[in-house]
Amino acid sequence: MLEPERTIAELKELRALTGDENGAQRVAWTDTWLKAREWFRSKLEGLPVEFHQDAAGNNWATLRGESEKALLMGGHLDSVPNGGWLDGCLNVMAGLEVLRRIAEEYGGRPPVTVRLVDWADEEGARFGRSLLGSSAFAGTHTVEADRGRTDRDGVRLEDALRRCGVDIERFPEAAKEQQGAAAYLELHIEQGPVLEKLGLPLGVVLGTKGVERHQITFHGQEAHSGSTPMTARKDALAAAAKLALEIRPIAMKHPDAVCTMGSLKTFPGIVTAVVGRCECTLDQRDLDAEVLAQMYREAREASERFAREENCTVEWSRIWSIEPIPFHPTLIGFCDEAIREVAGVSHRLPSGPLHDAAEVARAGIPTVMMFTQSLHGISHNKIEDTKEEHLELAVRAFDKLASKTMRWILEQG
Amino acid sequence: MLEPERTIAELKELRALTGDENGAQRVAWTDTWLKAREWFRSKLEGLPVEFHQDAAGNNWATLRGESEKALLMGGHLDSVPNGGWLDGCLNVMAGLEVLRRIAEEYGGRPPVTVRLVDWADEEGARFGRSLLGSSAFAGTHTVEADRGRTDRDGVRLEDALRRCGVDIERFPEAAKEQQGAAAYLELHIEQGPVLEKLGLPLGVVLGTKGVERHQITFHGQEAHSGSTPMTARKDALAAAAKLALEIRPIAMKHPDAVCTMGSLKTFPGIVTAVVGRCECTLDQRDLDAEVLAQMYREAREASERFAREENCTVEWSRIWSIEPIPFHPTLIGFCDEAIREVAGVSHRLPSGPLHDAAEVARAGIPTVMMFTQSLHGISHNKIEDTKEEHLELAVRAFDKLASKTMRWILEQG
Repeated sequence: MLEPERTIAELKELRALTGDENGAQRVAWTDTWLKAREWFRSKLEGLPVEFHQDAAGNNWATLRGESEKALLMGGHLDSVPNGGWLDGCLNVMAGLEVLRRIAEEYGGRPPVTVRLVDWADEEGARFGRSLLGSSAFAGTHTVEADRGRTDRDGVRLEDALRRCGVDIERFPEAAKEQQGAAAYLELHIEQGPVLEKLGLPLGVVLGTKGVERHQITFHGQEAHSGSTPMTARKDALAAAAKLALEIRPIAMKHPDAVCTMGSLKTFPGIVTAVVGRCECTLDQRDLDAEVLAQMYREAREASERFAREENCTVEWSRIWSIEPIPFHPTLIGFCDEAIREVAGVSHRLPSGPLHDAAEVARAGIPTVMMFTQSLHGISHNKIEDTKEEHLELAVRAFDKLASKTMRWILEQG
Repeated sequence: MLEPERTIAELKELRALTGDENGAQRVAWTDTWLKAREWFRSKLEGLPVEFHQDAAGNNWATLRGESEKALLMGGHLDSVPNGGWLDGCLNVMAGLEVLRRIAEEYGGRPPVTVRLVDWADEEGARFGRSLLGSSAFAGTHTVEADRGRTDRDGVRLEDALRRCGVDIERFPEAAKEQQGAAAYLELHIEQGPVLEKLGLPLGVVLGTKGVERHQITFHGQEAHSGSTPMTARKDALAAAAKLALEIRPIAMKHPDAVCTMGSLKTFPGIVTAVVGRCECTLDQRDLDAEVLAQMYREAREASERFAREENCTVEWSRIWSIEPIPFHPTLIGFCDEAIREVAGVSHRLPSGPLHDAAEVARAGIPTVMMFTQSLHGISHNKIEDTKEEHLELAVRAFDKLASKTMRWILEQG
């Protein structure tokens, strides 16, 4: 019997164990995170599962089935500092409840293998590298790129990992966990306001948006604010302000696209000087690679036009980018059905934030995610919350999705 | 005989004595500034003038005339750190040359008294308080407001002054130097690009612009750049960007008005978050108090409109303000004539930067300033420069202005 109330009770237990008055403190590779993982392992006691840690520090609970083909479910126990009580661990605890139900229903031997994974370091909060464990699983991780990363105290990533029994040189071996993987399911809070605005508890995630992330610098001419006529200025802030406004119509041509200028810095940045240099960031996201490429092109052209208009120059430098990762159409259909059976109404939406599911999908494993409503769309904050009735619906719908997916794996032979 | 070439030679001598590879280093109340003042005093030797320092540290060279009514000319030897070779000291050295000519022409006893003043600490570079000596002269200085100011090394203003033989408690006594003052003349580099753009060597200054200086904070809602739809955002940067652009048409309705957003800061200011709070500064200037008040009102209304449009709120807080200080109409006429006699063409313009002349005018003494062209409009920088032919024209025109003003003082009886 599925007991969604148990999931909520366990999430609260975890919060009490690893949070404080500022929120969740389960930053990966810290003692509090290790404590959370030990607590989780204790919850597996009595279940007919095998437990092991892979070469990248991901923890696996495997319920062997008749077939070696495996249904994977996963989440992450790590949090950002002062994080919320649901981000990441909701997936792990809901997956555990589904695992219990399946183990009970099939007397410890389901028709397909079912595996629950707690990915290591999804957030990248300490070393600035997110999706660390799942990228090792997917084979997209490059040891060279992450060797030598340090935290703010100068501790090296590889030393922090070694302390937790993980050797970064052995990361590539984690890819062998892909063996037999036939599907991957992940439940997560939305971390945005869409479902709340629609008044819906649950949604089907179509994929994770691709991202173009750039630093843009406008160069003008620093000048005295009192003695420089308006017509003689080369105001770098004016050019940047035009771009800050123009990225909005560029995004709004497309239903789910977003463009954000999150940081803008002025130099010399004093009240008595026209801005000589303005540095800003642009983050663009969409699920469609062509839309993303078009938005990037339009923003770039607009920035050059604004620089010309203001007698400035502009430079672009790419901070980071990733292609859109669409989820599996059949699993999207199952997820839609599962939500409708439990909540009556479903809604399809892309995910702006990245998730471990994106790495699993990149490995070619059929993947889908389910979102549950986030109150006020807020996460990475101690006020992150979801109504308990929605959490219960989420566990029930996720369980139905797991059943549908197991049948599909079997049907595929 | 007036020798403008001597003024240029002396300015170069002062530069060699008190500058380095980074520019002028005559910061007020430092040893280098004292050295410059001692050098200047040595230049007075052989002239029939009385020298004294007033209670605020201003240095006066007085050529007694038949009448006690006095023509005042002034400038300042102090500079910003890494400053230019002309800002401030051009006035002192040109005034000295005019003083020499008058002393020679009238055999040491001109019809009116002529006084040359080297104001103390015009720049406020070390303690953040500009026009220090001239405000004591004008009686607008408040000891309480400046007691306890410190420089970046923690040295107190009053201690730095005491080291130079000046007691801040006695500042109010400097106002007695106003006695007999019938007019004040000041020659300065423009520090802006207007005369250079017009191809003119000299201009008449109509007055110093009034200033409204404010800190403006827009409050929106920090949100995830990936998961927050464009239509669900409360983007504080968007509201500020609209204001950064709108202050330009607000200024450009008026011929000489300027509005500047010199600093803009975003919070949290990270690439992955919609800006939740945006702090910016606004500096507005015009010579007409009504225009200044209108621009302030319009910017304030615009900011409130933009805040509403972006679902944000806005707060204003005044940093500083000063009323416009118009110069004397008769002296403006004389300055115009003097420039036309020397250079053929004159031009009238307001001063955006403040000058000691503004304090003298506030004391009710008829005042005017003359500007000479600044190359590229640049000052407060070692590349500050003016063509030598323009410096010579400036000394000649300033001398003619002094003669016209002396006649006017006499005519007034």
